[in-house]
Amino acid sequence: MRPPAHSIELTQVTEWKSGRTRSVQDALSTEEPLEIRVKGEPLAVTMRTPGHDLELVAGFLITEGIVEAGAEIANLRPNANGAGSGNFVDADLAGDCPRPETLQRNFYAASSCGICGKSTIASIRRRGLPALNRKLHIDPEVLCALPTALASQQAVFERTGGLHAAALFDDGARLLVLREDIGRHNAVDKVVGWAHFEGRLPLANSILLVSGRGGFEIVQKAIAAGIPLLASVSAPSSLAVKLAREMGLTLIGFLRGHRFVIYSGDFRVRGGV
Amino acid sequence: MRPPAHSIELTQVTEWKSGRTRSVQDALSTEEPLEIRVKGEPLAVTMRTPGHDLELVAGFLITEGIVEAGAEIANLRPNANGAGSGNFVDADLAGDCPRPETLQRNFYAASSCGICGKSTIASIRRRGLPALNRKLHIDPEVLCALPTALASQQAVFERTGGLHAAALFDDGARLLVLREDIGRHNAVDKVVGWAHFEGRLPLANSILLVSGRGGFEIVQKAIAAGIPLLASVSAPSSLAVKLAREMGLTLIGFLRGHRFVIYSGDFRVRGGV
Repeated sequence: MRPPAHSIELTQVTEWKSGRTRSVQDALSTEEPLEIRVKGEPLAVTMRTPGHDLELVAGFLITEGIVEAGAEIANLRPNANGAGSGNFVDADLAGDCPRPETLQRNFYAASSCGICGKSTIASIRRRGLPALNRKLHIDPEVLCALPTALASQQAVFERTGGLHAAALFDDGARLLVLREDIGRHNAVDKVVGWAHFEGRLPLANSILLVSGRGGFEIVQKAIAAGIPLLASVSAPSSLAVKLAREMGLTLIGFLRGHRFVIYSGDFRVRGGV
Repeated sequence: MRPPAHSIELTQVTEWKSGRTRSVQDALSTEEPLEIRVKGEPLAVTMRTPGHDLELVAGFLITEGIVEAGAEIANLRPNANGAGSGNFVDADLAGDCPRPETLQRNFYAASSCGICGKSTIASIRRRGLPALNRKLHIDPEVLCALPTALASQQAVFERTGGLHAAALFDDGARLLVLREDIGRHNAVDKVVGWAHFEGRLPLANSILLVSGRGGFEIVQKAIAAGIPLLASVSAPSSLAVKLAREMGLTLIGFLRGHRFVIYSGDFRVRGGV
């Protein structure tokens, strides 16, 4: 089984491994928003990997209880024209299904978005966030030590195996705060909220390390808090990398042992370029 | 650093290991909804692990661009009375911040919810979903073979390290469909949507295996599709386990090698009780 071509985006990245850097090609999982409409009215937007979009919308309508039975989905039309092309699906519903405005309240917010990746990034640029600190520089060996520092402080994770962690370090790699949550974005919000109550915002001299993926939402939140360097032990998405490059965030992935990948902002990693 | 008491819930589960079962106590990560209100108006609901809730709300308002600067957060009040106690936070905003109704559109839906875990589960019960098939019975050895079958078919994951997978098997452990997505819930929706287009709903004789956590959303989606057995290679949340028990879903976690944990519905696993 081969992956659909649009589910992967290739990009050039810098790999650091035991003191040596090299430029390599990396495959990113594609992340794009999809707006689900019912009878022309927007119902929900989900960040998804393109491919099997009609299945996604049918499954969403069924599993979220929008339709009582699959048969009520009368028609699914992908929008193939104009801006954000391919990032809409409109569904007709048979019978007397609830109207979209009554449904909206049944969903909870996960993050801000636009309709296509481009407008998603543009909407963040429009927020007029201050530029990230370009004078922060980190030693690769310091970066490599962060996951161990996080793990030694992770109180809950070892017991349940079910929580995500976000940890804030100063530029000397001292752990400032660690928060855990069942939701990755919540762990980051708790860290930023801590900084707010401590009067430390914007976090111009800090590093954020997250235990999960460096997705679009996490990158967005780091930038909003003024954090110039975001590191993750796992892979970022295509949209996360685009946003990081657009906004000048240093984005590190696969930070494990004596290796990591720099997806954006090499200049903040000493010897990174 | 000790975990806050409310971030963990203890429960009795059945562990299966190389042919032997025993009852053990397990620690689950707590998952509960939190409603974020601005000037009394609901803005967003997020599924979170209780603890540091005011930090979470402050961080959310800042990182999602609801407030331009942290200083605009004038007051944060946890709601400590009535139903869903502790699952609301109301924020006053200083200055001329946007009104909540204009903000709502900036968030995208991730899943349905209520305000407390109890009403969340009640709202799913009210949907009047058909009871799950109690006649499906699975051999433990068959279960143990599923992750290998999924891994061998996972086309994208190995290349990017960034996608979640959901795979549907019939009761003979034959792989019916595999879908991958950057979002865990999207991978499940794509599988259910596939079943819809194939005329296979409800999936009364199927097993769903997910590569990530078995959280509340995933359990809810499995039940809505009529799937009687959900297995995951990782840990479920407290709310996922409560919902599974309430609805009679067999919920398996930590399915790795020759070991797994049964959180709910032992009767569908041969020799499980």
